[in-house]
Amino acid sequence: MASPEHHVVDIHTHMYPPAYIRLLESRSSIPMIRQYPGGGPPRLIILRDEVDAMNSVATADASSYSSSQQDPPGRPVTTHYSSLEQKLHFMDTHGIDVSVVSLANPWLDFVAPEEAGETAQAINQDFEDMCVTTTTGRGNAGSSHPRLYFFATLPLTAPPEALLAAVEHVRGLKHCRGVILGTSGLGGAGLDDPALLPVLESLAERRLPVFLHPHYGLPSSVWGGRGAAGAYGHVLPLALGFPVETTVAVARMYLAGVFDAVPALRLVLAHGGGALPFLAGRIESCVRHDGKLVGEAKSQTSSGSRRSIWQVLREQVYLDAVVYSEVALRAAIDAAGGADRLMFGTDHPFFPPVGAGEDAEQGVWESAAANAKAVAAALGEGSAEARAVMGGNAIRVLRLHEEGD
Amino acid sequence: MASPEHHVVDIHTHMYPPAYIRLLESRSSIPMIRQYPGGGPPRLIILRDEVDAMNSVATADASSYSSSQQDPPGRPVTTHYSSLEQKLHFMDTHGIDVSVVSLANPWLDFVAPEEAGETAQAINQDFEDMCVTTTTGRGNAGSSHPRLYFFATLPLTAPPEALLAAVEHVRGLKHCRGVILGTSGLGGAGLDDPALLPVLESLAERRLPVFLHPHYGLPSSVWGGRGAAGAYGHVLPLALGFPVETTVAVARMYLAGVFDAVPALRLVLAHGGGALPFLAGRIESCVRHDGKLVGEAKSQTSSGSRRSIWQVLREQVYLDAVVYSEVALRAAIDAAGGADRLMFGTDHPFFPPVGAGEDAEQGVWESAAANAKAVAAALGEGSAEARAVMGGNAIRVLRLHEEGD
Repeated sequence: MASPEHHVVDIHTHMYPPAYIRLLESRSSIPMIRQYPGGGPPRLIILRDEVDAMNSVATADASSYSSSQQDPPGRPVTTHYSSLEQKLHFMDTHGIDVSVVSLANPWLDFVAPEEAGETAQAINQDFEDMCVTTTTGRGNAGSSHPRLYFFATLPLTAPPEALLAAVEHVRGLKHCRGVILGTSGLGGAGLDDPALLPVLESLAERRLPVFLHPHYGLPSSVWGGRGAAGAYGHVLPLALGFPVETTVAVARMYLAGVFDAVPALRLVLAHGGGALPFLAGRIESCVRHDGKLVGEAKSQTSSGSRRSIWQVLREQVYLDAVVYSEVALRAAIDAAGGADRLMFGTDHPFFPPVGAGEDAEQGVWESAAANAKAVAAALGEGSAEARAVMGGNAIRVLRLHEEGD
Repeated sequence: MASPEHHVVDIHTHMYPPAYIRLLESRSSIPMIRQYPGGGPPRLIILRDEVDAMNSVATADASSYSSSQQDPPGRPVTTHYSSLEQKLHFMDTHGIDVSVVSLANPWLDFVAPEEAGETAQAINQDFEDMCVTTTTGRGNAGSSHPRLYFFATLPLTAPPEALLAAVEHVRGLKHCRGVILGTSGLGGAGLDDPALLPVLESLAERRLPVFLHPHYGLPSSVWGGRGAAGAYGHVLPLALGFPVETTVAVARMYLAGVFDAVPALRLVLAHGGGALPFLAGRIESCVRHDGKLVGEAKSQTSSGSRRSIWQVLREQVYLDAVVYSEVALRAAIDAAGGADRLMFGTDHPFFPPVGAGEDAEQGVWESAAANAKAVAAALGEGSAEARAVMGGNAIRVLRLHEEGD
């Protein structure tokens, strides 16, 4: 393993622990794991637009997919989703020293209120156990440093007391370094919902950053008839729906004053902030030219010290580097106010090599390599700034050098 | 006026000619111009989320808005929308030598099929007449060069023959340098609709670039309860809905193969391409990792020479520089493949100075100045590249040095 100042840290990498896999297997609506006729591994179905495709398979000839070129809906649940050995192999293949893993979307958004607390506790304990395993030799010969930390999952559908208790619980898990959060908030009310403030305050007080990650995308009407019918695969919801969802969520938080209400809150935005680095200027201009908002600011008795969206980005927000291009990476760095606010990620196990067979999945993934390449291209391979993005920033921001307490 | 190589050209600037104003005044649903009780100028209402606010005014006390701090819905229809003198004054105030004006959204999307052709013809003729006026001394002492060109408006709701006839008509107007197009296409089917291809082919053959401009934004559900209720003014639909609409439209065109089908088609994207410069890398990665799209590419018998979205951007797309930040401007230049593909714009008469009285509207507009500042900051004030973005590119791309024919 490289010396600490050259550590590569992957902060955007997902796992489904055993308890979550069992949960998905037991379900008959999304998210779910489903076995199709005709052989092949079970499929994970998480997107709304996969449901129609799924139903058409259910009514088709059982062998139709095995004889066609096209895959059944969803994605195969390979060991990349569930196996710690596989995660460590992926890390080794890509030169990743430490991963901060998180449950993939849609987390526990669909779990009944009375079960959410316990489910979250089981899953977070699964993650903690995996992290502990990596400190005791497994995949980590001769080092006492863990190779795995994690962002915990919160039971957002649970009653308020259970939700706050969950924050306290994960705070006590030694390898927990924050929480992963979707954009739906409490009952779909979003992250600009005042009722969520106690949760965000509790996280901020405990120095647990929020890794903000999309799942619901945009209403399928925006993809048009062909897009909604699947003519473009999943490109539109994944490439545009996901980042726009993140962008809208953060803009809503900004406009609602969440960052001012919880100044110790720290966000890490998935996919380089969605499209926020590019659109921050337009947001700021629209705020300054909106009759209603300008009128309200004037009628306030305070000093009127509104922070611009740029200031908030540079004071309370970090971005991952999962943007797949040098162009976007530069913009993310510029928007964040410096390379010290970006952190490398892979989005493993999503976006595996396509159509190249299972063996290819044990090699280098183009999707992961593209992000490392963009960092090297934007900042100079091996430069101090590139090293910071590739690992140093995560070690500092997520306190990976500290023992948990 | 500056010498030609220092000309400043504004390619994103709107006007409502008299015929369009009359049309809006005659309507009782959006888009419309409406006079509110209690005095004040008439208001232009073009956004869906302004309708609810409008209805609440209609049922409120007639003097409620005159006695409150808040403006009635929509925006005042000042002479900035309709007066050529005012446009020329704005240009002089901001050092703009030439403007390529266009009808503002939503153009003629709402016009009955049987009226669309004639309405478009009247409006385009209005624009041509205004341009001619500026070559004959008015606002242009001592020069034979016009200060105004225009992007024409197409009657998209008209029957196919009438629509193609409109292309032929605007091609014959001496100062027409392209057409402005929304994203709705024919009957809302979008720009990825095969039925639109003959129109795009006809435009491409006649060397008429398409200035692609948003209007419909995103379904209001994405703004959440507070956003949809207007708590954040119009910031979300304008700052995020508009650019995302553009981004989705171009991605759909790309995925549908429109750029390959019409290789001579040239687009100029409003607002720096929405969020396309930032998201192009993710689009490209999602295309390369989509089982369906990769499978289709493999089953094709051609050489499989799919052009990346980057290639299409650099071969068939230009971007305006209306992005309100140095960060976004740099990303737009990087994505477009160079500063020679960006063109300055102001978005006048939208985003006037707020709350500073009518006199302020005769001075410098911060919204317009912000875009010029971003160009200077990104490329160096007065540099050859900055001058190209401020005017030279528009002169070349839109053939402003050529006489119409």
